[in-house]
Amino acid sequence: MTNSFQSWMKETQANVEVALHQYLPSTSTAPQKLHEAMAYAVLDGGKRVRPLLVFAAGKLFDAPQELLSRAACAVEMIHAYSLVHDDMPCMDDDALRRGKPTVHKQYDEATALLVGDALQAQAFLVLSEAQACADHKLPMLQLLGKASGSIGMCGGQAIDLASVGVALNLPELEQMHRLKTGALLRASVLLGAMSGKPLSADEVQALDQYSAAIGLAFQVVDDVLDATADSATLGKTAGKDAADNKPTYVSLLGLEASRQLADQLCHDAHQALSAFGASAQYLHDLADLIVQRKA
Amino acid sequence: MTNSFQSWMKETQANVEVALHQYLPSTSTAPQKLHEAMAYAVLDGGKRVRPLLVFAAGKLFDAPQELLSRAACAVEMIHAYSLVHDDMPCMDDDALRRGKPTVHKQYDEATALLVGDALQAQAFLVLSEAQACADHKLPMLQLLGKASGSIGMCGGQAIDLASVGVALNLPELEQMHRLKTGALLRASVLLGAMSGKPLSADEVQALDQYSAAIGLAFQVVDDVLDATADSATLGKTAGKDAADNKPTYVSLLGLEASRQLADQLCHDAHQALSAFGASAQYLHDLADLIVQRKA
Repeated sequence: MTNSFQSWMKETQANVEVALHQYLPSTSTAPQKLHEAMAYAVLDGGKRVRPLLVFAAGKLFDAPQELLSRAACAVEMIHAYSLVHDDMPCMDDDALRRGKPTVHKQYDEATALLVGDALQAQAFLVLSEAQACADHKLPMLQLLGKASGSIGMCGGQAIDLASVGVALNLPELEQMHRLKTGALLRASVLLGAMSGKPLSADEVQALDQYSAAIGLAFQVVDDVLDATADSATLGKTAGKDAADNKPTYVSLLGLEASRQLADQLCHDAHQALSAFGASAQYLHDLADLIVQRKA
Repeated sequence: MTNSFQSWMKETQANVEVALHQYLPSTSTAPQKLHEAMAYAVLDGGKRVRPLLVFAAGKLFDAPQELLSRAACAVEMIHAYSLVHDDMPCMDDDALRRGKPTVHKQYDEATALLVGDALQAQAFLVLSEAQACADHKLPMLQLLGKASGSIGMCGGQAIDLASVGVALNLPELEQMHRLKTGALLRASVLLGAMSGKPLSADEVQALDQYSAAIGLAFQVVDDVLDATADSATLGKTAGKDAADNKPTYVSLLGLEASRQLADQLCHDAHQALSAFGASAQYLHDLADLIVQRKA
């Protein structure tokens, strides 16, 4: 990762924080408690991997800032809502997220449920209200709908639920993560790219290969971290997957082979970007970030 | 209510059932259990008041069937997801809905959570994929986002949550219901109208007056039925509001004054339609249906 990437990342993360503030409903508008809880769930937390992917892909295609910014906030709101619901007692029952009490701990379960529901609606609203023309935004809204719904993120969650205590094989585990985490990561890359110039079929294919590789790498690294890092470093409860008897890359492949797989996937992601040349440097470095992260 | 209305209603309800089947993800596609639970939550139930409003308003403005059908399914999916989440133990904790076990009783809480989440995404997707041009659909998607999010339905739910055991006055109760139920009923009417020709400011205003009146009437009648009907007739648990110590029109005004208010609101709704003449007959009759319903 270059110095230029590090400073771009910090600047983009700061810009995303400002944009999230702007595109969340104001906490001074009624219903205030709900709006405060929505802000609590979204602001001051996370590495903003998905927004970074949106902006890095947008850079490749000269995308306008306002549309990128709204697309980045939309995917981050979808991601944040999924974490809020995922942490609830009927799902993963987790008390800690991004180093803070989870929403249902800080508020209550009913509020957490509504926060997630309202954040999902807000995501579609924020993207739909961008200044770009309707023809430009509509395929982006469709992609967001597919990536977050039953054949995307929610579908992956459903497979995850059904897999507790079940002996998934490697292709089944991969399919689960392709939906659960991969669909929204892919949407982040494509939404960034679609914010700019129209994409050729080859460009879509290259971005899809990149997305598939970083999507799986993300999950492999998650499993490695869950097995090796402590809760304070992760900002969430460590060791949960083993405790919950969930299949992971580490349980299927072992720790060393999982680390090697992550490196291989990072290499695949870099390869997929070769046609874009130097302008894909930030996407290239984001693959490194995903694999080398410590939390 | 005329015979022509009765037969139109039955035909429309049957068409909506077919369309919901068509626009829900197929239960033969993975993840099947999630798709089955989504279908369980949406199909074979309810009076389809919101789809009827979409079609009745669409009739006024020569709207194309496919767009109307998708708009109707989108609002019904939003409505169905809100019921699924509302019935969960952390909200109203209800075991019975539309005469069937609620989703978390039939499946489990985690599935109910995901069913609601996936239905919301599906609603936006179904509307966004209509054949109409992007310029036509985009304002409709924006309206759906506002009506279902934190300044619409979810916001109303949040106010409702905060009002348990609190002495709301009549304007506060009205504001809660304007969001909780009214926003999506208004969206149904406007989405139907917007599916057709562009609306004048006067037409929007008249439809807004109509929607506001039927929205409140709907809730007043709900409160009357909750206090007077039995669970078998309602298809859901009766007497819950009083048991939960929630403010209602009946608790604030008494039974007789609540019934009179519903009649007055029905009259107001009819008045608001006067400029549209005979072509608004089905909207006129839907106001009667909402006030005269027994469940």
